[in-house]
Amino acid sequence: MNILIVFCHPEPQSFNGALKEVAKKHFLHKGHQVEVSDLYADGFDPTEHPRHFPIRADGEYFAPLTEQRNSYDQGNLPQQIHEEIEKLERADLVIFQFPLWWHAQPAMLKGWFDRVFVYGGIYSGSVRFDRGRFVGKKALCSVTTGAPEATFSPFGRSGDIIQLMWPIHCSLYYVGFDVLAPQITYGVQGGGLKYVTDENFRKHLENSKDDYANRLAHLAEESPIPFTGWDDWDENGELDVRHPARWRA
Amino acid sequence: MNILIVFCHPEPQSFNGALKEVAKKHFLHKGHQVEVSDLYADGFDPTEHPRHFPIRADGEYFAPLTEQRNSYDQGNLPQQIHEEIEKLERADLVIFQFPLWWHAQPAMLKGWFDRVFVYGGIYSGSVRFDRGRFVGKKALCSVTTGAPEATFSPFGRSGDIIQLMWPIHCSLYYVGFDVLAPQITYGVQGGGLKYVTDENFRKHLENSKDDYANRLAHLAEESPIPFTGWDDWDENGELDVRHPARWRA
Repeated sequence: MNILIVFCHPEPQSFNGALKEVAKKHFLHKGHQVEVSDLYADGFDPTEHPRHFPIRADGEYFAPLTEQRNSYDQGNLPQQIHEEIEKLERADLVIFQFPLWWHAQPAMLKGWFDRVFVYGGIYSGSVRFDRGRFVGKKALCSVTTGAPEATFSPFGRSGDIIQLMWPIHCSLYYVGFDVLAPQITYGVQGGGLKYVTDENFRKHLENSKDDYANRLAHLAEESPIPFTGWDDWDENGELDVRHPARWRA
Repeated sequence: MNILIVFCHPEPQSFNGALKEVAKKHFLHKGHQVEVSDLYADGFDPTEHPRHFPIRADGEYFAPLTEQRNSYDQGNLPQQIHEEIEKLERADLVIFQFPLWWHAQPAMLKGWFDRVFVYGGIYSGSVRFDRGRFVGKKALCSVTTGAPEATFSPFGRSGDIIQLMWPIHCSLYYVGFDVLAPQITYGVQGGGLKYVTDENFRKHLENSKDDYANRLAHLAEESPIPFTGWDDWDENGELDVRHPARWRA
């Protein structure tokens, strides 16, 4: 198996960095191939911008999707985007390791979605969802939060974590991934591995690493989050009124 | 009244640019003050990064929140962040004008949240939610989507728009804003104002501008999205079990 870990944290010695290493070591130990896109270390540019398209389909007016499609078709994608797509094509499982900042992925990782999932290359009107480019590949978000678990419950003040993950999971399903339940590590505060001498921090880190490693050992047995697909939708892109999922709601 | 429009689109002549102008003209015509943060034009850097903190609280280990707090306390915030905070302090209403890219705000705007809502300055453990820094100010997201409205219904394949807006709205409420219902303009495709000679495009643009202007004329009468607050929560940050909102769920 080929594993791609998309790692997004500015500090290698962070809690997130430690969890990235857990996954990397786990899969290497099992004899798999592991690649890491370390977005901060690689200096990834998260901003979709005219500067990335020196050869323009439309020089007067910057429509991002038009330029993405043209750039892909002409083989002119920026080198970094081209390399990310090649890594995705090799991967059977993609893990996103990031902290929840402002109820979503950090801008650096959001920009990875904006720029790497190229219109006309990675998706189009007919190549989406369960007919998407990455059908057959799995995706897993491993996320740390600052606030404790209770506050992310359906009645918690941080916001229901299921709803907070919804946009990211929608994006991953949109390009065809089987999206696994997220690995959420709650209550990560006070910095990173330099605090490992603090007893509470050390315990939380070790427990979190163990929880993650234990889950990864059985990941192959997991079923993905269920999404409806093309055969379930009517011509307006809505779940058909006769679909059983409507009865349950 | 002071209005701040945070505008995030790489193309000034876009549909988003047109909607930004609708709001700007509306409020200027009514005699209000309007400021615009044009993130692309201003070259806003969305990436929270050690490079923004030349004077570090901790030079060995980069913990973003530690450095944000220190930088704010020492009066060393990057000039651009300092200016955004001053604009927010002047504003009675903040409008975010952006396209929905990958089920969320573009990376540029996500980074505005990551960097401008400074820990220790804009919020802290006790200065959040309905005791937040921006209590008394209103926020409105004006968002365009590529896909049509039906696909964003609760059973639509693009994902329920209420859930897609949830993370952004949580972030705005977290710093104290009264969050108004979003202005969603669906089905914006095929570029921007250069296509205004196309009859369908022109009609959609004119209708969307009219809808928005009509809404803005009565914005003062609107009630914000209801959120629970400090008096509703138990010591774990969850809605108290006796709270009536739990009965309705």
